[in-house]
Amino acid sequence: MLRKTECMVDQIAALCGGDTTARLLAEAALSRAQVLDGLNAFVALDAVKVLAAADASDARRAVGTTLGPLDGIPIAVKDNYLTRDYPTTACSNALPLEPPGVDATLVARLREAGAVIFGKTNMHEWAYGATNTTSSFGPTCNPHNLSHITGGSSGGSAASVAGGIVTAALGSDTGGSIRIPASACGIYGFKPTYGRASRHGVLPLSWSLDAPGPLAASLDDIAVLLSCLLGEDPGDAATRGSRPFQPVAAFSRTARLVNLTGPGLERSDEVDAAVTAALQSARGCAVETRELPGMRRFFGAWETILHCEATAYHQPRLAAQAVGFSAVTRAHLEAGQYLSAQELLRAQQVRAEFCALLASGLGDWDALVLPTLPVPAPAIDSDWQEFGGRRVSTQDSMTWFCWLGNLAGLPAVTLPCGLSSTGLPIGIMLMGRPGQDETLLQIAKLIDTAVSQAE
Amino acid sequence: MLRKTECMVDQIAALCGGDTTARLLAEAALSRAQVLDGLNAFVALDAVKVLAAADASDARRAVGTTLGPLDGIPIAVKDNYLTRDYPTTACSNALPLEPPGVDATLVARLREAGAVIFGKTNMHEWAYGATNTTSSFGPTCNPHNLSHITGGSSGGSAASVAGGIVTAALGSDTGGSIRIPASACGIYGFKPTYGRASRHGVLPLSWSLDAPGPLAASLDDIAVLLSCLLGEDPGDAATRGSRPFQPVAAFSRTARLVNLTGPGLERSDEVDAAVTAALQSARGCAVETRELPGMRRFFGAWETILHCEATAYHQPRLAAQAVGFSAVTRAHLEAGQYLSAQELLRAQQVRAEFCALLASGLGDWDALVLPTLPVPAPAIDSDWQEFGGRRVSTQDSMTWFCWLGNLAGLPAVTLPCGLSSTGLPIGIMLMGRPGQDETLLQIAKLIDTAVSQAE
Repeated sequence: MLRKTECMVDQIAALCGGDTTARLLAEAALSRAQVLDGLNAFVALDAVKVLAAADASDARRAVGTTLGPLDGIPIAVKDNYLTRDYPTTACSNALPLEPPGVDATLVARLREAGAVIFGKTNMHEWAYGATNTTSSFGPTCNPHNLSHITGGSSGGSAASVAGGIVTAALGSDTGGSIRIPASACGIYGFKPTYGRASRHGVLPLSWSLDAPGPLAASLDDIAVLLSCLLGEDPGDAATRGSRPFQPVAAFSRTARLVNLTGPGLERSDEVDAAVTAALQSARGCAVETRELPGMRRFFGAWETILHCEATAYHQPRLAAQAVGFSAVTRAHLEAGQYLSAQELLRAQQVRAEFCALLASGLGDWDALVLPTLPVPAPAIDSDWQEFGGRRVSTQDSMTWFCWLGNLAGLPAVTLPCGLSSTGLPIGIMLMGRPGQDETLLQIAKLIDTAVSQAE
Repeated sequence: MLRKTECMVDQIAALCGGDTTARLLAEAALSRAQVLDGLNAFVALDAVKVLAAADASDARRAVGTTLGPLDGIPIAVKDNYLTRDYPTTACSNALPLEPPGVDATLVARLREAGAVIFGKTNMHEWAYGATNTTSSFGPTCNPHNLSHITGGSSGGSAASVAGGIVTAALGSDTGGSIRIPASACGIYGFKPTYGRASRHGVLPLSWSLDAPGPLAASLDDIAVLLSCLLGEDPGDAATRGSRPFQPVAAFSRTARLVNLTGPGLERSDEVDAAVTAALQSARGCAVETRELPGMRRFFGAWETILHCEATAYHQPRLAAQAVGFSAVTRAHLEAGQYLSAQELLRAQQVRAEFCALLASGLGDWDALVLPTLPVPAPAIDSDWQEFGGRRVSTQDSMTWFCWLGNLAGLPAVTLPCGLSSTGLPIGIMLMGRPGQDETLLQIAKLIDTAVSQAE
């Protein structure tokens, strides 16, 4: 099933050097997508459209008018991004949307940089869940073991990269939906600072938590993608004043990492061992371990905000066509109607407290460290996970650490740092200070280099 | 009852020129407070403390170690600001607070600039109302006519300045509580941009709407006070990144004013005539009249946010000692418990829409113009007001225009622009762009000059 995937920057170099063509890349990706059909990673993929876009790229390159760094690169798109040439369903049966004829801003930015939009990927219904087992197109399978989940909600995007079909894909992240499947599938995922990437044309889950971003085969790929994606967009008020991604020089001083622990942050022994080993082998990092108190309150705040905002967005659709939602999504949305304004305000206040705690209650850190997931990718039919003395639902085990980054709006990245005893990937997560996406990526490289050398 | 009050800047000049002393200013203020006891403007005023502070100021001045521009100036403080030497009750019987031994940040800043804190002023109970008739100390009376209200909730502060007791006072403004009584009493009031003045130590009403600020006898006084008050404070997260007040040069180009009208913005004929005359006589201003649509929705959003946040703050006190609240305040707070998270989220979304409309839906304006109140100060026993085809409660007539500035977080200033047929003051309100408090004050001066010359 698996092979060492090439990176997007390799593809870019090969295209620039004349060693391949967009047509060849597209054909290879289409062929591999067919071979890996069992992953159920794609919900829409039209070879005619893909090859036409690839040919157009080759024609541009032939006359020296390439559009940007991504010209000719196949990139998959999660099915909650509007795309002018594919339907967008959010993998839900509720009022399937016809092709609306417009691109989400980030899809448009990929096209402006020359990318070949490579179909729409499977996701957890409306992104309201993190297992990718609830989808109108059926569950997505993990390329490392087809009987295990990809995690979600950007599971199809992660599987398409981890399976070596494409080197990059777009996802969206409200409580970890980029990082969770990236970690479970052994690839790289980056959730930008809230408000640095436009959500215009991305179907919302929870507008104060949602952050779209890339999944890819390497950190260098992530850097290229962020350079194309980030920055202000009149279509998303949250991006007002947001800077484009401007790569910074490698760290010249020691990076200060805070390794977070405490009740609510438990993880399995093998996950802990892999993360610890990665931290210990990284050069140029000073790692301090600190307990983060109050996790139960902070998690409650994230859940309350998520449920309230999701219900507010879906209310009209729920009233008009409740049967279109899966039972579990419908139950979430209906429950959201009974939360009071007082509960929401308390959650918003606790959120502010959490941001203040991370900003100034943990010393002078450059990055916060956690595993991305407390366990390797669970089996598709397992409803519960046990780790560190805890027994939690598989759903809750997926968002176990990741929601912290959304509640505080921090940039966050996951990178592979080992394999479990059963051969499933383990990921390490780094979170940066708001707006410091560039610095975060440099610190991630320190860890990534250490992990690669240890392999 | 009334005399032409001197301004604070006159007092400052007299102190600096040796023409008066802090002791003389304090004695005059104490004496006038006694004479005007019928205003019920003060709820705590200790002559011993006032005179000691004045003597300390004179001693500093004698040896050339004055603290700042306000050294020796008596300034009254609304009873919802914590003060180290007076109790703070918010004019409520609910759990009266003992002197907590600390100053609100703005009180501390006044003291650091040398001000003589001149007692605590009467206010609408917990600032949850705009008439100043609901107070554990009884209603405040308008210096222009004792049988009329001052408006509120900073009614005591306004009466103390309008009565000529002090030249300046602190107030707080959630839906107009600085501007309403300033207008009703014929003085100047300034609500800074949300987040430019610290609320640390000011008992909250609605934390996303509350803005503390000054009431004074002239715009020059306001400028001196803002220079002492505005800027960042670690005690109030909303002030993060907030600039101190930095006076700007007078307008060299034409100021673009937008005079707002439309359903929901009705006013009485004589108020409209006074505002129109002030605008017509102002030099250096281009005035355009525009209709502001959707007032009912926007007002509903302000009310929902206000009620939800006020209830959230008072919930524990209400549970412990409901009888301590007046019936009307208690009814408001209890009702706030039944608003749903969905209603609050909708209000927060409508608020964002309102901010966007003002920011970019009304052209390229420097200030928005409205009357401060639709009617002159109502009689104390009048429950309803009729104007422009409307019949609204006296309470709603007070916040009629002012809440707009709080919902959008804009800086807003009121200045006197005439007298009614019954000799009661009429005020004009200008609102600036967020953060442009300095520019707003310059535009206000253009109107103020025109009004003074017309008199």
